[in-house]
Amino acid sequence: MRLRNKPWAKEKIEQYPQYVVTAPEELKGKWNTVYEANQPLHIEIGTGKGRFITEMAKANPSINYLGVELQESVIVSALDRLIEAEVPNVKLLNANAVNLPQYFAKGEVSRVYLNFSDPWPKTRHEKRRLTYKSFLKIYEDILPEHGEIHFKTDNQGLFEYSLTSFSAYGMLLKYVSLDLHNSLFEGNIMTEYEEKFSEKGNRIYRCEAQFQKKG
Amino acid sequence: MRLRNKPWAKEKIEQYPQYVVTAPEELKGKWNTVYEANQPLHIEIGTGKGRFITEMAKANPSINYLGVELQESVIVSALDRLIEAEVPNVKLLNANAVNLPQYFAKGEVSRVYLNFSDPWPKTRHEKRRLTYKSFLKIYEDILPEHGEIHFKTDNQGLFEYSLTSFSAYGMLLKYVSLDLHNSLFEGNIMTEYEEKFSEKGNRIYRCEAQFQKKG
Repeated sequence: MRLRNKPWAKEKIEQYPQYVVTAPEELKGKWNTVYEANQPLHIEIGTGKGRFITEMAKANPSINYLGVELQESVIVSALDRLIEAEVPNVKLLNANAVNLPQYFAKGEVSRVYLNFSDPWPKTRHEKRRLTYKSFLKIYEDILPEHGEIHFKTDNQGLFEYSLTSFSAYGMLLKYVSLDLHNSLFEGNIMTEYEEKFSEKGNRIYRCEAQFQKKG
Repeated sequence: MRLRNKPWAKEKIEQYPQYVVTAPEELKGKWNTVYEANQPLHIEIGTGKGRFITEMAKANPSINYLGVELQESVIVSALDRLIEAEVPNVKLLNANAVNLPQYFAKGEVSRVYLNFSDPWPKTRHEKRRLTYKSFLKIYEDILPEHGEIHFKTDNQGLFEYSLTSFSAYGMLLKYVSLDLHNSLFEGNIMTEYEEKFSEKGNRIYRCEAQFQKKG
């Protein structure tokens, strides 16, 4: 997404520690203390403006949600949404995905969502794609055995790449939809991006990939 | 494909044993004797009117090809094509795929092609799909370790199903294209069906799935 320079973003984020978690390295193994209820934690990596994670939290009160977003200038929009929504089971984290194993104990995250991640189409940028093997290792480190990644994108190249990347990592493809909005899948919650691009006629691809026990 | 009744088909097939292999159970372990050259054997299951297998044979003279087709009324069209093409490295077999392990020794087939297989869209017909696990077992029995299935279809539901079926069988997805005719894939040879349906604007899906050593 296009980034606007928002020099006040960092300051605003720091004003709302009840929504944007601070000092995540001190929460390792203790994320249940962040939320009102001790229940499974699902995280979205690259949460953008936060519509998906907030609507998921409203629809699923027995799950805790955390939206992880690197860009301060973007996460402030998600923060505005959280302030307005007043949902107890969703928080934000301003962090880089590569640091997640420093913040979460093995199995502390029950599910990882990736929605409309940056496709990084050039081969030389493969390592930046959030479905590259080094990122899969990161998710595996924080998920339980047989933990799952739920992935949506409208980018054909990224989806093709990700299917082979999941497979090469030894993951099981449990579900694949090549046209989510014309499928039998129920309960889809659209991201801002998803609504915009599906209105233009773009197909939305979705899959669920599950880590397997190491042989 | 729509089948026309051709009562003369069986008789015609029997007139051309140099093109349509007879007594395949006697060839187990000896398929190299069927062809002029002793070289790798690739088979297409559900070869239809035979355009793919014949054109592949012309394009790849150092591979032997076998088109397997159950329907006599269809394989006669492939036979006409072979008679006209006069290519030494392609033959036909009028057989049911379930019997293939009776005809081939383990590893005697180097690659399996599935092109535009019947989608059998109803859940109760899942077992008839050529990418159902019992068929994967059959292909595994005749391919070498790390043998590959190369699969094309324009049927979205069958492709989604097949990706998860390959994955559940423990196969590696080496290549996935969600729009073959607008991809960088080179050397695609179209089937009759493929040309007709892509002209209508249908997308063609393709993947390569590789069997893995059993853990």
